[in-house]
Amino acid sequence: MKKNPSMKYKIAIIGATGLVGQELIKLLKDFPIKKLSCFASLKSKNKFIIFKNKKIEVQPLQKKIFKKNFDFIFFTAGEKISKKYIPLIKNKNCKIIDSSSYFRLKKEIPLIIPEINSHLIKKNNIISSPNCTTILMLLPIYPLHKKFKVKRIIASTYQAASGGGIKLLNKLKKETKEHFKKSNEYVFNLFLHDSKLNKKKYSEEEVKMEKESKKILNDKNIKISATCVRVPILRAHSLSLNIEFSKNISLKKIYEILKNSEGIKIFEDCKKNIFATPKIATNKDKIFVSRIRLDPTKKNTIWLWVVGDQLLKGAALNMYQIAKSLIL
Amino acid sequence: MKKNPSMKYKIAIIGATGLVGQELIKLLKDFPIKKLSCFASLKSKNKFIIFKNKKIEVQPLQKKIFKKNFDFIFFTAGEKISKKYIPLIKNKNCKIIDSSSYFRLKKEIPLIIPEINSHLIKKNNIISSPNCTTILMLLPIYPLHKKFKVKRIIASTYQAASGGGIKLLNKLKKETKEHFKKSNEYVFNLFLHDSKLNKKKYSEEEVKMEKESKKILNDKNIKISATCVRVPILRAHSLSLNIEFSKNISLKKIYEILKNSEGIKIFEDCKKNIFATPKIATNKDKIFVSRIRLDPTKKNTIWLWVVGDQLLKGAALNMYQIAKSLIL
Repeated sequence: MKKNPSMKYKIAIIGATGLVGQELIKLLKDFPIKKLSCFASLKSKNKFIIFKNKKIEVQPLQKKIFKKNFDFIFFTAGEKISKKYIPLIKNKNCKIIDSSSYFRLKKEIPLIIPEINSHLIKKNNIISSPNCTTILMLLPIYPLHKKFKVKRIIASTYQAASGGGIKLLNKLKKETKEHFKKSNEYVFNLFLHDSKLNKKKYSEEEVKMEKESKKILNDKNIKISATCVRVPILRAHSLSLNIEFSKNISLKKIYEILKNSEGIKIFEDCKKNIFATPKIATNKDKIFVSRIRLDPTKKNTIWLWVVGDQLLKGAALNMYQIAKSLIL
Repeated sequence: MKKNPSMKYKIAIIGATGLVGQELIKLLKDFPIKKLSCFASLKSKNKFIIFKNKKIEVQPLQKKIFKKNFDFIFFTAGEKISKKYIPLIKNKNCKIIDSSSYFRLKKEIPLIIPEINSHLIKKNNIISSPNCTTILMLLPIYPLHKKFKVKRIIASTYQAASGGGIKLLNKLKKETKEHFKKSNEYVFNLFLHDSKLNKKKYSEEEVKMEKESKKILNDKNIKISATCVRVPILRAHSLSLNIEFSKNISLKKIYEILKNSEGIKIFEDCKKNIFATPKIATNKDKIFVSRIRLDPTKKNTIWLWVVGDQLLKGAALNMYQIAKSLIL
């Protein structure tokens, strides 16, 4: 793909009616587009997407659409759809940006957070965007890692309903409305992250955070261990991170580095007890960092409270940025 | 206080209309009581408590009431009330069980979780009951600590609204009801624990978890570092704990010890993805333990997901058990 500032592109979105798809469409209004094509499952038949004040019909996803010459195809419809359709795309000039987990850990596929490893973006025409929680975790850790070299991360997450898709989001809303009439499960409750456990009893989300991080940071020796929990929050995930570094740190330097790093906003007023919350981070592009403090129980170790909109930087925005850095 | 199985006791509850006070009154129906007196602030004037099918008038808290010969006085009205009134009590035969933080770290005052250190219960007529989150954390850790000696604990908490008292609980309920009409702060949101930060930027709750634990476990060398977060849950706190031991552990032994320990219930079905949640732990006496697994990033380290009703074992039940072990 040649970089040409006056060039306009033919773009397809697979999963256009999903939560990530819809965020992506909002972001694409600033992208140089020749034509935007929206695809979804048969359930979305007869639906329309409003894009730049024009109605775009949502088309059913079929094999034959991949014969068209798109410049970019964004896959936001989950692992099964990516696995089934991406290998059918033969046009090597088409850039495929995939938000699913299917290709993420494959060796030849770059797994990209543009602030961290955009230099790998052109390795392949398929580019994976990482797990949302992994993105939120690594964005503030990476600049510190460059300086101090991370040794071990202990992460406990507080994940929003929308991370589980429209169904789970609507379930929380519906059950909350109903709660005062009858009791139900999801409102006012927590869940351990609703993915299968492996043999060592780690959930898929926890494994993703570990493996994807190692790949993105290109460092197999970093130790990452997580407990992922779903909280009754509509949008924006939160992470409680305890991070040990190999090199000598100081709190002053930590602040300085974070303050000067891309995509991050330090958000705290310790005197007024104001810190980042999911409400504050919702609909924001930046990852919010709060409660920055030394952990006195371990040398060169800090705590961070990190909150970010998992649908934006955790998914749609990261994909959009990948596309942007391909054309600029 | 002499132990006498046929003896009946005069009992006072300070803060009888509060969340902990009300739980305590429910528990006391099985206690050998001669007379139960209920005290609260003037706001609770003309209120009644139903106890064993009898109406008990809630009396205003005044200095003169402490001249009466109570056998037990339970303080559940917070730090200021405990600080102001407990020193006025001159009757050395009266056992004062205090749920506030005011006396907890004073050297001469025992800080008791009966399953852990009930042998210290008779040291003083004032007995402190620990911070709710500290109780929930230590109950499952203690039996493991006895066997393997804890080296370091990393805790991330998920705390219910009711831990902040009736006001916060009602705020969450009210705002949730209103949410679909207008936006507000507490519903569908998280907060860093709403207590002041110290110079090292740790909140009071985080400091309590550290200092109280060291005192209860009688070990200053244990390293404890926590991030405490309020979640939109009505009742029951949750903790994500990463625990490093000094001695060699095995997962089998960990299960065996936890299975045979008092006050704990292992609650997990890894195949069906069923784990302890706040809803499951609400109104239960036991502390629920889930997601028991090794942390492969550190030798002799495990994860536990711990959920408990902070009003029961975290407060009222612990106080009740202290009283019980004084009479049995």
